[in-house]
Amino acid sequence: MSMIAIVYFSATGNTHQMATAIAEGVQKAGQTAILLRITGEQIQEGRWSDADVMETLNAADAIVFGSPTYMGGVAAQFKAFIDAASEAWFAQQWKDKLAAGFTHSSSLSGDKQGTLIYLAVNAAQHAMIWVNAGDMPSHYLGKTDGVNRLGSFMGVMGQSPMASDDQEVTIDSGDRLTCVNFGERLANATAQWTPTSN
Amino acid sequence: MSMIAIVYFSATGNTHQMATAIAEGVQKAGQTAILLRITGEQIQEGRWSDADVMETLNAADAIVFGSPTYMGGVAAQFKAFIDAASEAWFAQQWKDKLAAGFTHSSSLSGDKQGTLIYLAVNAAQHAMIWVNAGDMPSHYLGKTDGVNRLGSFMGVMGQSPMASDDQEVTIDSGDRLTCVNFGERLANATAQWTPTSN
Amino acid sequence: MSMIAIVYFSATGNTHQMATAIAEGVQKAGQTAILLRITGEQIQEGRWSDADVMETLNAADAIVFGSPTYMGGVAAQFKAFIDAASEAWFAQQWKDKLAAGFTHSSSLSGDKQGTLIYLAVNAAQHAMIWVNAGDMPSHYLGKTDGVNRLGSFMGVMGQSPMASDDQEVTIDSGDRLTCVNFGERLANATAQWTPTSN
Amino acid sequence: MSMIAIVYFSATGNTHQMATAIAEGVQKAGQTAILLRITGEQIQEGRWSDADVMETLNAADAIVFGSPTYMGGVAAQFKAFIDAASEAWFAQQWKDKLAAGFTHSSSLSGDKQGTLIYLAVNAAQHAMIWVNAGDMPSHYLGKTDGVNRLGSFMGVMGQSPMASDDQEVTIDSGDRLTCVNFGERLANATAQWTPTSN
Repeated sequence: MSMIAIVYFSATGNTHQMATAIAEGVQKAGQTAILLRITGEQIQEGRWSDADVMETLNAADAIVFGSPTYMGGVAAQFKAFIDAASEAWFAQQWKDKLAAGFTHSSSLSGDKQGTLIYLAVNAAQHAMIWVNAGDMPSHYLGKTDGVNRLGSFMGVMGQSPMASDDQEVTIDSGDRLTCVNFGERLANATAQWTPTSN
Repeated sequence: MSMIAIVYFSATGNTHQMATAIAEGVQKAGQTAILLRITGEQIQEGRWSDADVMETLNAADAIVFGSPTYMGGVAAQFKAFIDAASEAWFAQQWKDKLAAGFTHSSSLSGDKQGTLIYLAVNAAQHAMIWVNAGDMPSHYLGKTDGVNRLGSFMGVMGQSPMASDDQEVTIDSGDRLTCVNFGERLANATAQWTPTSN
Repeated sequence: MSMIAIVYFSATGNTHQMATAIAEGVQKAGQTAILLRITGEQIQEGRWSDADVMETLNAADAIVFGSPTYMGGVAAQFKAFIDAASEAWFAQQWKDKLAAGFTHSSSLSGDKQGTLIYLAVNAAQHAMIWVNAGDMPSHYLGKTDGVNRLGSFMGVMGQSPMASDDQEVTIDSGDRLTCVNFGERLANATAQWTPTSN
Repeated sequence: MSMIAIVYFSATGNTHQMATAIAEGVQKAGQTAILLRITGEQIQEGRWSDADVMETLNAADAIVFGSPTYMGGVAAQFKAFIDAASEAWFAQQWKDKLAAGFTHSSSLSGDKQGTLIYLAVNAAQHAMIWVNAGDMPSHYLGKTDGVNRLGSFMGVMGQSPMASDDQEVTIDSGDRLTCVNFGERLANATAQWTPTSN
């Protein structure tokens, strides 16, 4: 059985709900998903550190990276994790693992494509294999389930209006379904991929 | 009076309507707008050529670049124009002119950000000054006029469902208003900018 | 045995030499490489068409996309091919095939990263699996063979000074070796990947 | 007299030297430059805060953003500053100020273009006016001064080999000259731009 690690940051909870839905899809397809949530508390003087998270990532068959889109890019807290993972990069420990990405923001477009591209650029530095999203926008197919309603291809996008800090957030049902599908796609891709010890 | 050239490609007419609305905004602000539509007929064996268009662009105070987003980037026909303009690039003839961009696609997000970034990258090669979009998404401000409803910042985005070939297209009223506002912003920016002979 | 199609445009010959070196690597690893060179002659009124090329691509296990970086992006001729391939996109015929990219320009950096990102964005629209480059810059490892001397990760970059039109071009020996290695990596990745009927 | 704020992060000192050289160029052209260096100490639990820095930025006529390229993007510490500046964004306090960017890494290409694009995307969210680099690669012009030797257009790139932690760093003389020129260009652009009270 493959293990897919989903490492992400979430402030208000939307990105967390996306992570949970992706994990659900992974499990539906018979693989194991582990959720790893990055927090501000793990950051000291701008530097992130958490040995357990790194160990789990090193052991994973695939890593899914997720962050809200803040000011046109990944959240600083998530970037702190990415920078700390340069240790794994220098040793190319994640080479040939599968990778994928997801993001959330409050606008329909909202520079989310740039965040997904950045996540793919980071995975490229790690010499990983990037699994793109697999669902066509459902409205192209005459469906109304909201799957890929935003038209995203490099990874999965979610969008919800800004919530006040004490409000419960709930992601869009179409976005949720897109995440579940993507989890299944990733689980299947992991099963189809036989990494060698290059 | 400043002259703002709007050079664009449009197949089904959506991008053309955006160009027209930007021109309307330019004129509203008391400047001159010239529409230059790139066509497939100007392309011979993959190479675009039109001396009149190039002469108008060389004389312009600002150039607005527009293209639908096809397969995640500018239309090939528009890229043929851009490649031909490498002549102006090599002589840095457009240096210090103002530049801006707009794009249209049928999905809400739909990789349009990548197209706007590309248009900015091309303008950077020409050493132009890039005027970003100026309107916050109106829903952030509690308004319902649809201005910047998609959440775009590097330029203006429009979105309409795919139309069959013989259908009249009409762009979204919020997108139209965003274009008119952007035309005014560009006209004002041109008035605020005093280029020197670098 | 897997078949890897290398589809590319080349004007002066540098990108062609990169394609040839990638094919050499593919063959070294025991798989088949087919070179498909896009030409301006295949473009009529801005639109590209070649049924044989499309048939070969539909049959390939992996597709490598290559273009010089012109004005910060893929050559217009190559974009004409990409736009025509929207037919395969709409039917998602290339879904789950492996994909990769390479580019060439005359500057050391020269906006080549943007071209590789664009090639990955296009592959994402096709729901392909993107194989990133696998070699660390060799100078990090204290080597002098020039492998990945430019520091590229999303695909392979080549760089040579501008040549006059009638000059024979020869790509850098380090870039050539990077291409051969990348061909081997792609061949191995194809052998490791068992696509299902999505 | 205009005031140009240069806000940047630098770990080993290369990006700091670039900032200093840009400031030198600004002063050469008769304007004032203020260096604002972001530090890890300003970050508590992942969040950056410094009221004095924000006040200076709010008062500036132009803001130059600089960061090393780490793992394909701006350093996490710099992103923490950018995210905290969302306060200025929400009020659009920097609207119509001039903006520009620079970055440094140890590889010739090394995903630096992505960092410059990201800095431009962030400036776009602030509705700023982006000043692109102005120097053609000097080798195109038959010169050997190293100006824009890497071929960068959206901003200025510097490159130096990785230094050990206790080594003095010195940036490349061509990169230094490119920075000085860029400082002059920015100072001149500020003088040419008359912002209105939008």
